[in-house]
Amino acid sequence: MAQKPSIPKGTRDFLPAEVAKRNYVTDVIRTQFERYGFLPIQTPAMEKSSTLKGKYGEEGDRLMFNILNSGEKIKKADVNALQDNALGQFTSSISEKALRYDLTVPFARFVAQHQNEISFPFKRYQIQSVWRADRPQRGRFQEFTQCDADVVGAVSPLLEAECMQLFDDVFDGLTLKGATIRINHRGILAGIAQYLEAPDRIVDFTVALDKLDKIGPDGVFNELRDKGFDDAALNRLSPLFELSGDAIAQLDQLEEILASQPDALEGITHLRKTLGFLNPFKVSQLAFDITLARGLHYYTGIIFEVAPPKSVAMGSIGAGGRYDDLTAVFGLKDVHGLGISFGLDRLCIVLEDLNLFPASLTQAVDIVVLHFGDVYMQDLIPYFAKWRNMGIRINCYPTAHKLKKQMQFANQTQAPWVMFYGNDEQQKGVVSIKNMQDGANSVINLKDFSEKSIVKKHS
Amino acid sequence: MAQKPSIPKGTRDFLPAEVAKRNYVTDVIRTQFERYGFLPIQTPAMEKSSTLKGKYGEEGDRLMFNILNSGEKIKKADVNALQDNALGQFTSSISEKALRYDLTVPFARFVAQHQNEISFPFKRYQIQSVWRADRPQRGRFQEFTQCDADVVGAVSPLLEAECMQLFDDVFDGLTLKGATIRINHRGILAGIAQYLEAPDRIVDFTVALDKLDKIGPDGVFNELRDKGFDDAALNRLSPLFELSGDAIAQLDQLEEILASQPDALEGITHLRKTLGFLNPFKVSQLAFDITLARGLHYYTGIIFEVAPPKSVAMGSIGAGGRYDDLTAVFGLKDVHGLGISFGLDRLCIVLEDLNLFPASLTQAVDIVVLHFGDVYMQDLIPYFAKWRNMGIRINCYPTAHKLKKQMQFANQTQAPWVMFYGNDEQQKGVVSIKNMQDGANSVINLKDFSEKSIVKKHS
Repeated sequence: MAQKPSIPKGTRDFLPAEVAKRNYVTDVIRTQFERYGFLPIQTPAMEKSSTLKGKYGEEGDRLMFNILNSGEKIKKADVNALQDNALGQFTSSISEKALRYDLTVPFARFVAQHQNEISFPFKRYQIQSVWRADRPQRGRFQEFTQCDADVVGAVSPLLEAECMQLFDDVFDGLTLKGATIRINHRGILAGIAQYLEAPDRIVDFTVALDKLDKIGPDGVFNELRDKGFDDAALNRLSPLFELSGDAIAQLDQLEEILASQPDALEGITHLRKTLGFLNPFKVSQLAFDITLARGLHYYTGIIFEVAPPKSVAMGSIGAGGRYDDLTAVFGLKDVHGLGISFGLDRLCIVLEDLNLFPASLTQAVDIVVLHFGDVYMQDLIPYFAKWRNMGIRINCYPTAHKLKKQMQFANQTQAPWVMFYGNDEQQKGVVSIKNMQDGANSVINLKDFSEKSIVKKHS
Repeated sequence: MAQKPSIPKGTRDFLPAEVAKRNYVTDVIRTQFERYGFLPIQTPAMEKSSTLKGKYGEEGDRLMFNILNSGEKIKKADVNALQDNALGQFTSSISEKALRYDLTVPFARFVAQHQNEISFPFKRYQIQSVWRADRPQRGRFQEFTQCDADVVGAVSPLLEAECMQLFDDVFDGLTLKGATIRINHRGILAGIAQYLEAPDRIVDFTVALDKLDKIGPDGVFNELRDKGFDDAALNRLSPLFELSGDAIAQLDQLEEILASQPDALEGITHLRKTLGFLNPFKVSQLAFDITLARGLHYYTGIIFEVAPPKSVAMGSIGAGGRYDDLTAVFGLKDVHGLGISFGLDRLCIVLEDLNLFPASLTQAVDIVVLHFGDVYMQDLIPYFAKWRNMGIRINCYPTAHKLKKQMQFANQTQAPWVMFYGNDEQQKGVVSIKNMQDGANSVINLKDFSEKSIVKKHS
């Protein structure tokens, strides 16, 4: 019996119109990455488990897709571990490789492995799929594409400013107005924790703070109280929720409040310097956000997160930050890093929701040539070669089916032009061209035919 | 202790120069696919095991990379099967997905699944990675990229001719001269088997025939004799090894020999018709090859195989053929297909061996800007935005390191131009530009700066 065809949950097929949209977005991102001097690299889909495991916390290890060892090797399955419910150990006994979970750890591995083949500061970009066994939902897939740009081997607020500029330039390239680039600094978060006299509880504190948008200041206070922060600490926190004005103004206010916290002051100074290097944004907004606390287990300096325009219900479409020493675990110490990432899949949803994809993307073929019989095709074939050389995309209907069927096909391809070449045209050495938008017909001499000649005839 | 970084055997990291080369090749292939009216699709890296298993013979099932089920599901491991050495059954109990093994079966699954969303004849191309647990060797990897173009839902020699033309156009685009496009037809092979009075032994016969190049006619005769073909049969075979002249001439001779074999005659007629639709090749050679017998378990008509220029020791760099009913197993019957495939990885090796990659590929950055201090950078930043908007790729050195170190970096990037902007330039409102090829220096007014202005100053 025939199988009912389907694909694994959380994965997708992309039809031509979708591929065109995805290529459009990645082309814009790639172009901007390259204009900022980032160079492309690619790493394998499969990494050794030892490279990936333990780098993303317990959740990461759990959501990683493991590759079963090949052939006889699976005989080494540790059945005892399975029976003891030691699933991690059982997995290790039959799997030595896993699918890429993000692009950052493979990049750190790459930098350590190829340190003598690259020059520092090394600016690389990477646009590749990653895989996570996460519960699928809108904007979350088990296979998705990340577009990362990182620079390693340098610390400079200029680079931070360039990353923010890059976000804006990409959105400008995509005509996506109204994204918000939110920034914060780990030093400021550390300073606040110190200010609350709980320097070792920065994570508890930021987890609560991160919920401000959802549960409001009172909710945050309650959560912190539950976690054992006392009223004195919470009173000190209040003014931090009342910062107002633009980013620079908020940093000024913060500086006063945290005047005796050196980590915070360093963070504030760094952000000020970064903002000083910034050109005005073209299409995005900038927001200093004291509650932004993502990736705190590896970010060591500035933190970025990009929210889509408010009219779209969707999580962040970009993120990034400064990290240090990510390559140390692979034997290369003291390498500073800064990276940003675009989520291709979410960006595509946002552009779709806002109807921002160019209409021209649907036209993957310029001309459909109708087929009136092999004898006519024979005439055209040498011209096809010439026209394709000019860059014209020609889909020649393969058989002399009824005209109606062929026209229906031409319609579905959304080609802007259809070419007819039958007995009449053969006699006169011409082709007839139909403009599929307005139905207008024209006749062009075979020898003069070019994209320009059609457009001219129809203008 | 730090891990020594490495990647799984048979996989590769691609450094920027290599990515540039791979992109160059895929861009040429993609452009040509699109000029022939093929549309891009993408399928997931992971397919359900039920989609892939049993489609590539026993070897394929063995070399497939299986994905371990996530989380608690691996508790269902069939330990008895493992103990009985029923490794396939054990694998099925803990794995429901596998990595794509080629692009053809996923495409057949795609066509059946999306039959109501696409219009037939459907011309698709797909450039994606595939994975095989094969023993690595030159030109053979565990992760590699296939570039496939297929048309389903039509039978027409015109399409076959277009596929051959497409091979030639891609090679022309890559300036790769001297590839040989070998063709044969399954009908001819079937006709020969009938002619030898062993119609059901076409596989035995073609396996031997396929070795003609390596072991000569006598070797083939010996092997066939071992397989039980009698002398009468072998005597009939002899003239088939003596075909001479171009493809058309060989088909003429073949037609005389196999005059009473209807399958062969049909194949010959089909090939003649195909060749009749062909423009002269630009850079490749055409060869009819009676020994070409690849993919006989699914090809049903014409068979293609492309050999690289003779000076390169490397297996085929392209292949294809007509197949029928590949979608039937997924519930869609009577769909005829024709496909060709380029092996990106081997093509890259061939171009490398022949030194055919354009030199310009190494220039991923147009200008390296040296850093004389933040105060100078501050001046330039608004210009960077303008220049990048013009499409100029600018890598700005992030910190004011010693000039020598910065120049060394600029050298390594292979950027054609280096920009200086220090005290002197600031006074005059200019930038100094060094041509890294000839060392010539020029000065350009900040406001007039553009790619053109540099080139003009240096011409």
